[in-house]
Amino acid sequence: MYGAGDVRVETVPDPVLQQPTDAVVRIVRSCVCGSDLHPYHSLPASEQGTPMGHEFLGVIEDLGQEVSGFKRGDLVVAPFAYSDNTCVFCREGLHTSCLNGGFWAVGGVGGAQAEAIRVPQAQGTLVKLPVNEDSELLPSLLTLADVYGTGYHAAKQADVNARTTVAVIGDGAVGLMAVLSARRLGAERIILMGRHEDRTKLGVDFGATDVVPERGSEGVERVRELTGGEGVHAVLEAVGYMNSYETAVGVVRPGGVISRVGVPQYEDAPIGFGSLFGPNITLTGGPAPVRAYIEELLPDVLEGRVEPGRVFDRTIGLERVPDGYRAMDGRTALKVLIQP
Amino acid sequence: MYGAGDVRVETVPDPVLQQPTDAVVRIVRSCVCGSDLHPYHSLPASEQGTPMGHEFLGVIEDLGQEVSGFKRGDLVVAPFAYSDNTCVFCREGLHTSCLNGGFWAVGGVGGAQAEAIRVPQAQGTLVKLPVNEDSELLPSLLTLADVYGTGYHAAKQADVNARTTVAVIGDGAVGLMAVLSARRLGAERIILMGRHEDRTKLGVDFGATDVVPERGSEGVERVRELTGGEGVHAVLEAVGYMNSYETAVGVVRPGGVISRVGVPQYEDAPIGFGSLFGPNITLTGGPAPVRAYIEELLPDVLEGRVEPGRVFDRTIGLERVPDGYRAMDGRTALKVLIQP
Repeated sequence: MYGAGDVRVETVPDPVLQQPTDAVVRIVRSCVCGSDLHPYHSLPASEQGTPMGHEFLGVIEDLGQEVSGFKRGDLVVAPFAYSDNTCVFCREGLHTSCLNGGFWAVGGVGGAQAEAIRVPQAQGTLVKLPVNEDSELLPSLLTLADVYGTGYHAAKQADVNARTTVAVIGDGAVGLMAVLSARRLGAERIILMGRHEDRTKLGVDFGATDVVPERGSEGVERVRELTGGEGVHAVLEAVGYMNSYETAVGVVRPGGVISRVGVPQYEDAPIGFGSLFGPNITLTGGPAPVRAYIEELLPDVLEGRVEPGRVFDRTIGLERVPDGYRAMDGRTALKVLIQP
Repeated sequence: MYGAGDVRVETVPDPVLQQPTDAVVRIVRSCVCGSDLHPYHSLPASEQGTPMGHEFLGVIEDLGQEVSGFKRGDLVVAPFAYSDNTCVFCREGLHTSCLNGGFWAVGGVGGAQAEAIRVPQAQGTLVKLPVNEDSELLPSLLTLADVYGTGYHAAKQADVNARTTVAVIGDGAVGLMAVLSARRLGAERIILMGRHEDRTKLGVDFGATDVVPERGSEGVERVRELTGGEGVHAVLEAVGYMNSYETAVGVVRPGGVISRVGVPQYEDAPIGFGSLFGPNITLTGGPAPVRAYIEELLPDVLEGRVEPGRVFDRTIGLERVPDGYRAMDGRTALKVLIQP
């Protein structure tokens, strides 16, 4: 990406091992993330450009000497942050704060919207998948790289259970995965706030019991009506804009939780007596440590009990990635799968 | 209080029953709260004045027809918010959001810095104390009205346990009660941030293992040093100013919790990627539902296992309440006990 709206497909040198803890993976499936749309809207123009993409599964092509437990030819999935899986934060399940970790497409590490990628901390980062690269499960397995684990993080951080009334803000892929996750954790009342009918329909398939297309104060009022005036125990905020935060504050119940996984496009926001403090609202969330959740979520995907891959509604080759961004930005595609 | 710095002791009509759910209590002990200093600094001048005080224990003098379980002459303690103890929020332990509740000294209800007070929702609000009004335990029992329960709320909301490293911001009565509460919940490392030596000494008695008198970035650096650079799992913020919030963000560990019980003197604050979101910090707290904690905390006080009443370092009569405010504001008294 060379600036807002300027996505180009270019030939770059093939990635090679740089550290003994690296692997090189040939990418089998990748995709475009809702969070990729933030730089797509606002990245300052530059001459060198920046690689893009942080979700992939693929086949190991090369392995550093210190990587054990894998072999060339293994099909693997990677979380959207690499991590050693051994440091004090990883051991607590917070892989996004790994002392030796980092994010794709920055600091000399490539992006996943590519044919291949160098994987730092490969042993801690990669998870072997017990399927072949022609498996029909690949789209669902790819969601373990980010959106499924991110939606799950929102629900886990909010401590969703059978007694929890939930509102999910946003009908993008992460919002829909938050619905799926809340349902998986037992929630029986899940209100999806979104206005794209094809998406909210999928949300209902995933477990949403109510859909609120209204936004702003009207949407807040509608959720309050649906909850006897009390508001919901847990708000899973999967957008990241200030008005989504305001909606979250508006619909949450006294003593409830706002769990954010949409990357905030603001820094300061109301948290004083009149918003969070007075009614004892808890604010939680952040970049999901999806690595912590892959093993837990994998069996349901492999056995077909959940089909998170249904969020992909278009498949393209690498050469059409600029179209993929346009389609997601224009809301004509929910989530674009890339098959290099 | 007739305005900032203007506290007067005046004769007002005796409180009487107004609702069948009311009681009238003769006040035996009351006190001045750190949070009373906020209006003491900033209340606009007015001609009618506002009653003050929200912490008391006393003897029931009169009871409405719908109040059962109590009789005239009972010694009782009241939390700083009255509540019916039966509504949906009370049943969840969030008495400060009671549908029929409210706060002292507003809306036609008197303040506790007085000889007597009308208690709405008396049956849900009052807790009988099994001691006489000449008991030496009265100061400690009075802390159940606010500061002990408030410090305990901070620690409970932060889920403090034996594996939790804790920082307490503020060496006022609530901060010291947060230390005591963290210790009671098993925390083995409790860093008290405060610079008043007589108070931090008491904090050490209550369980603080380290004292950091430095403030601002120096204080943050010191706490980071004490925790191997990682920061603390739980920050109990017992002040309420913006710089305390900034210190909390500075000392908290990735994945940690900031639990606020100091009433925020700000509305907007940083909560975006660069502060809370990136490192997955949870922000929690609010006005403590101390009613929910009284029965739990009472036995330790009655049996002398904890002595929260040690936060009172001066006792005055009603006529000297203006001096009490001055002493607490000037930091020559930690917390002033009132014996009407």
